[in-house]
Amino acid sequence: SFGGAMAGCGLTEFVGTAIGNTIGLVIANVDPLLHEKMNIDKKYRSIGIVGARTGAGPHIFAADEAVKATNSEVVLIELPRDTEGGAGHGSLIIFGAEDVSDARRAVEVTLSEVERTFGDVYGTPAGHLEFQYTARASSALAKAFGAPLGQSFGITVGAPAAIGVLLADTAAKAATIEAIGYSSPGNGTSFSNEVIFTFSGDSGAVRQAIIAAREVGKQVIAALDPADVVSSTTPYI
Amino acid sequence: SFGGAMAGCGLTEFVGTAIGNTIGLVIANVDPLLHEKMNIDKKYRSIGIVGARTGAGPHIFAADEAVKATNSEVVLIELPRDTEGGAGHGSLIIFGAEDVSDARRAVEVTLSEVERTFGDVYGTPAGHLEFQYTARASSALAKAFGAPLGQSFGITVGAPAAIGVLLADTAAKAATIEAIGYSSPGNGTSFSNEVIFTFSGDSGAVRQAIIAAREVGKQVIAALDPADVVSSTTPYI
Amino acid sequence: SFGGAMAGCGLTEFVGTAIGNTIGLVIANVDPLLHEKMNIDKKYRSIGIVGARTGAGPHIFAADEAVKATNSEVVLIELPRDTEGGAGHGSLIIFGAEDVSDARRAVEVTLSEVERTFGDVYGTPAGHLEFQYTARASSALAKAFGAPLGQSFGITVGAPAAIGVLLADTAAKAATIEAIGYSSPGNGTSFSNEVIFTFSGDSGAVRQAIIAAREVGKQVIAALDPADVVSSTTPYI
Repeated sequence: SFGGAMAGCGLTEFVGTAIGNTIGLVIANVDPLLHEKMNIDKKYRSIGIVGARTGAGPHIFAADEAVKATNSEVVLIELPRDTEGGAGHGSLIIFGAEDVSDARRAVEVTLSEVERTFGDVYGTPAGHLEFQYTARASSALAKAFGAPLGQSFGITVGAPAAIGVLLADTAAKAATIEAIGYSSPGNGTSFSNEVIFTFSGDSGAVRQAIIAAREVGKQVIAALDPADVVSSTTPYI
Repeated sequence: SFGGAMAGCGLTEFVGTAIGNTIGLVIANVDPLLHEKMNIDKKYRSIGIVGARTGAGPHIFAADEAVKATNSEVVLIELPRDTEGGAGHGSLIIFGAEDVSDARRAVEVTLSEVERTFGDVYGTPAGHLEFQYTARASSALAKAFGAPLGQSFGITVGAPAAIGVLLADTAAKAATIEAIGYSSPGNGTSFSNEVIFTFSGDSGAVRQAIIAAREVGKQVIAALDPADVVSSTTPYI
Repeated sequence: SFGGAMAGCGLTEFVGTAIGNTIGLVIANVDPLLHEKMNIDKKYRSIGIVGARTGAGPHIFAADEAVKATNSEVVLIELPRDTEGGAGHGSLIIFGAEDVSDARRAVEVTLSEVERTFGDVYGTPAGHLEFQYTARASSALAKAFGAPLGQSFGITVGAPAAIGVLLADTAAKAATIEAIGYSSPGNGTSFSNEVIFTFSGDSGAVRQAIIAAREVGKQVIAALDPADVVSSTTPYI
């Protein structure tokens, strides 16, 4: 089961839920009106839908595992601002597939992976830190962040955004990485209070950059609020 | 009285309040500096102002009744993102009128209608659903959503946005409607965590589409949080 | 000390904290990857960083004092939407300097001034009011608001935005001022639920406009919620 015992929802479109008020749905035969208005290629008869109130990075990295594991594509990734996400984003991810079983499977994998990808999300009343890593980026990460396909890829996120600037600088100095992107409140986010730094390179270097930034992030966010800086689930990097 | 006993506010500009931290104000003679900076036609000597922390659909549908009932126009509709609105929008609506009594009356009608138009807004800790319907769209709905004037018009809204996608598909399949618009976090909203589907058609079909989506929405949002899915006031559709 | 006894954070990059989950940081030698991705002139070897969950006006006016007092420039001002800021913005301000001591000093001055510039921020559960004034605008205010350099400059802010419209009209009528800007949820803010009116002119006129708007604002926001309308620190205008 994905995200808890939701047997109570009798809809065939319902797939499951996960941490962060994440919901997974599937539509077997998308209505033509919707295909057109959503601007989705009609060859994708079925879509899988993953949405969350809290979290975007965890869902995108989870979706990247889903596209590796299934015969589906990520056709849309959007990043709402959401009250529940504090300083950060929620997410809306749409998978397209020719067969409903593929769309459903993509959603299932994503919901299942989200537990892991929330592992290096650290929230306190003052803000949050997020780190993600993959040894091999696939098309979801390429679409969302411009990650080079097949390469090791990582991100550092700090909120308030001031902290994210320091994380980016720390990561850049800690190892020989290639900077891919830098998103800030007014440029590349949906006005979230975050700086998101993305980079690729040698697998060891990407991890080293993340680990260095994580150490600094934990120290500096503790200066704003005395609360312990703890993982949302279990750290994986 | 509109929105409670607010006799305590002695300002002549004050009209009243309503649900959702909605406030109604009127300016009899707009200062020329403001006319220019707000880019409002100077023929509108008076403006009515309705703003809310929570809710945009309810206020726009209420304002549509106000323009039908008064000699005023909606000159501006803006949709802030607001903490208090959870995953959704607040609103700012400006009525222009040549006479202050018309501007005031437009605000009064809007505040009075908002009680009704919150009737098919259903919030839970996990998100919200919203449905609106009018038998005859007027200029406020045309301005906000591109509604065809004089026709039956409805909207479905789901938050988190994943739910809104399912509502749109459900509505599209339930009856023969004409799709007018589809807004999502990254395209047509102010980055709210909603999908908003708008449609017109035969009055019965529009209502049927809404009622089908409402049934599905109540089931699926209950999968995220066990709280009862209840109307903010009294359902009207 | 700036913003409390934060001796516990051992990072050399840490400068201090202040009201509104404001944090001040400094980077002595910005990594070249970051210089490029942030699009900051490389002559600024050092950057000072001030970020906040709550508040933008207070930080920008504080930063304006910092650029007057130090050999630094404001190279970036961004306005996130943030849950913690209620209807308003957070902020991210970056100072550039050739010498780290100047960058650090700019952050210190900003953190120290923020206590004062929160003085005319008035929050209630229904929304907030903000007023800022300077006798002489410098480059931070020019960059953020287009303030004429060296002139007296003020702003009025009301949230929900409906209240901000009334404050703008009140300020415009109260004294002979020059309107500089008018920002609203859909035009000039990051979709915050505010109207921000900015103006310059004779010092007495600018103050008179603010004081008139402040009186009206306190009355009208009290109509939405019975809570007392109190300063976040100590009023300074």
